[in-house]
Amino acid sequence: MTYPFISGGVTAARGFTAAGVHCGIRKNRTKRDLALIVSDRPATAAAVYTKNLVKGAPLLVTKRHLSDGTARAVICNSGIANTCAFDGEEKAETMCAMTAEALGITANDVIVASTGVIGPSLPLEPVRAGLPALASSLSREGGADAAEAIMTTDTVKKEFAVSFELGGIACVLGGIAKGSGMIAPNMATMLCFLTTDAAIAAPLLRKALAETAEDTFNMLSVDGDTSTNDTVALMANGAAGNAPVTEENEDYHTFLAALRQVSTAIVRALAADGEGATRLLECRVAGAKSDADARLAAKAVIGSALFKSAMFGADANWGRVLCALGYSGAELDVRGVSVAFRSPAGHLAVCEGGAGIPFSEDTAKAVLSEKEITVEISLSDGNASAVAWGCDLTYDYVKINGDYRT
Amino acid sequence: MTYPFISGGVTAARGFTAAGVHCGIRKNRTKRDLALIVSDRPATAAAVYTKNLVKGAPLLVTKRHLSDGTARAVICNSGIANTCAFDGEEKAETMCAMTAEALGITANDVIVASTGVIGPSLPLEPVRAGLPALASSLSREGGADAAEAIMTTDTVKKEFAVSFELGGIACVLGGIAKGSGMIAPNMATMLCFLTTDAAIAAPLLRKALAETAEDTFNMLSVDGDTSTNDTVALMANGAAGNAPVTEENEDYHTFLAALRQVSTAIVRALAADGEGATRLLECRVAGAKSDADARLAAKAVIGSALFKSAMFGADANWGRVLCALGYSGAELDVRGVSVAFRSPAGHLAVCEGGAGIPFSEDTAKAVLSEKEITVEISLSDGNASAVAWGCDLTYDYVKINGDYRT
Repeated sequence: MTYPFISGGVTAARGFTAAGVHCGIRKNRTKRDLALIVSDRPATAAAVYTKNLVKGAPLLVTKRHLSDGTARAVICNSGIANTCAFDGEEKAETMCAMTAEALGITANDVIVASTGVIGPSLPLEPVRAGLPALASSLSREGGADAAEAIMTTDTVKKEFAVSFELGGIACVLGGIAKGSGMIAPNMATMLCFLTTDAAIAAPLLRKALAETAEDTFNMLSVDGDTSTNDTVALMANGAAGNAPVTEENEDYHTFLAALRQVSTAIVRALAADGEGATRLLECRVAGAKSDADARLAAKAVIGSALFKSAMFGADANWGRVLCALGYSGAELDVRGVSVAFRSPAGHLAVCEGGAGIPFSEDTAKAVLSEKEITVEISLSDGNASAVAWGCDLTYDYVKINGDYRT
Repeated sequence: MTYPFISGGVTAARGFTAAGVHCGIRKNRTKRDLALIVSDRPATAAAVYTKNLVKGAPLLVTKRHLSDGTARAVICNSGIANTCAFDGEEKAETMCAMTAEALGITANDVIVASTGVIGPSLPLEPVRAGLPALASSLSREGGADAAEAIMTTDTVKKEFAVSFELGGIACVLGGIAKGSGMIAPNMATMLCFLTTDAAIAAPLLRKALAETAEDTFNMLSVDGDTSTNDTVALMANGAAGNAPVTEENEDYHTFLAALRQVSTAIVRALAADGEGATRLLECRVAGAKSDADARLAAKAVIGSALFKSAMFGADANWGRVLCALGYSGAELDVRGVSVAFRSPAGHLAVCEGGAGIPFSEDTAKAVLSEKEITVEISLSDGNASAVAWGCDLTYDYVKINGDYRT
């Protein structure tokens, strides 16, 4: 089932407004650096966080605030990550308190996030100065400004939303995300804010988000570096008026499918906009012994620097795919591996039974010169499958990261 | 104890000769592509291989030939890896038989290796045609030609040797190696051929090699891609005349120290010549809870694309070091992490107690602009330590690998 995509992103769902302004954490005055998302009524909320042992201070504060399963607002700055700074938690708590005061809600209902350079202490004066303008510009059309305000090295905004029905009632789920480098979410991660007007109990919201993250955010790698600040937060405010989802019934599965669809769209957009990327890479593994084996195999191929470089060069170097499968940790029989490349320009089989087969280099060049490339891997070990997403490794990745901090 | 380095590489030890010629597997006629190393008498021999499930055919054949713990010769070609080809093992066996015939030894005493593109079938006609010239040019001075013949994208030859004494008898251990990309040896790997004139029993030779590989070859990463063909082979022919080492006595430990010294020198040379590299990076971790934790931590930092890119840009972005430590899988207390950079230009502390400390950007630029950079990480979790080696990530890595095959 595929639901129709609609416009509006994080403010597509009823009862949500958002805004984004430049407050001064970043020197570049043309770049918005502070985002706010608000529900006009209490919402159930859930989040998943990076498994990196080094955690940004905002994550620790958000985790405490979400322990009751409810939230009303998200405040997020870009420019400085508020991580590995001696005063991080205090600053993150103060940021929530200032936001709560501006909105007339309690600090415990504020989700806080930061993204940018790790290390420096976060200046709060720009946040304090920017909050009045931010709060007064909240609107149903503000999602795009919020999406821009959370960007770092991203070159495009990531906003998606779908509409679906629960018990005959039209509901919406949408969100915004940022991320371009330091991307290899582990277990449950990403800087992504999702909203829905569906009514759903907090425990089920948590379950749906964790399950979705496993197949979407956790199957993404731009550079293998798992960030310290990855967070996916989801607020459900019930403004749609559906009968609240309180058990794993048909409505729950409809909700899960909508969440998965938006999350997959976001992950593909993040991969396509990976730092320096010129191509979106999708790796589809079928015939694996188990889900875990399929995931390991797909992620190893997507994460291989050699495979990524070959894709940048539109070079059908399938030996690097076999090599990555071999060190992936997945249990597999090499003699049963087939590999093909697919893109809008065509389909190209390059390996069968673990050995190369003849192919046209001209066709290969055509297939691999597209913006979106799928590498299809067929194993002979079972029936499990997985999909992972990434991007090519380019000169610009090195350029962007050789001098990001200064 | 540090032993004196001597010249001669893989032929520095008595009783070993070597040669390298262009036989025609590579199209470029100025690049040698076939190497031969021979002991003038039977030698005990041991090898360690890649843990990649996809293994080059030569490894399977070498493993069979070394099951009796003896060898006389190494034959190695560059250009084609003889991996994932339908006729790989047959070709590797034939290559050994042809070599044995040219030398008047048995095929079972030949170690075979191949390196280059994965997939294509290895043409044996060039090998057959090149063997007479190869065998007739074997000499004590031929180590350098052999070192050149095994190179792929390497820009410099890697040859090292040391002299040491066993029971008052002067012994030599030396070797050659190749490797520049697809380098993240796992458990016991690298294309490296070592020779010694020391007499040592096969079981101890195996043990010494395995132990050394753990701290040297396995602590190296250029791009995180574990090759299908990595092999380190060591022949000990006893030409020095020492009393054979048959137990773990003082002589064994002397031998182990010499082996470790040569292996470390080789690993540093491989890292410095990593594809596109402009800097050799060394990561020293101290104060870890266990050896395993120390290794995980050091390898995560050395393997981080973001850290490697920052080093290319001489940017003291220590937050990326903390980030890599956090996702390394090592058990550690973030609040006890200190980080400093060291190079011939000076020493720069950047992080203490898990948080940043003020430092001069000018000093940072000077320290990080050198050819060899050490990142020193101090943990507060125990007494274990580890060292890992790698290189920066540069435009040239992408350039080299965007179009390697074609």
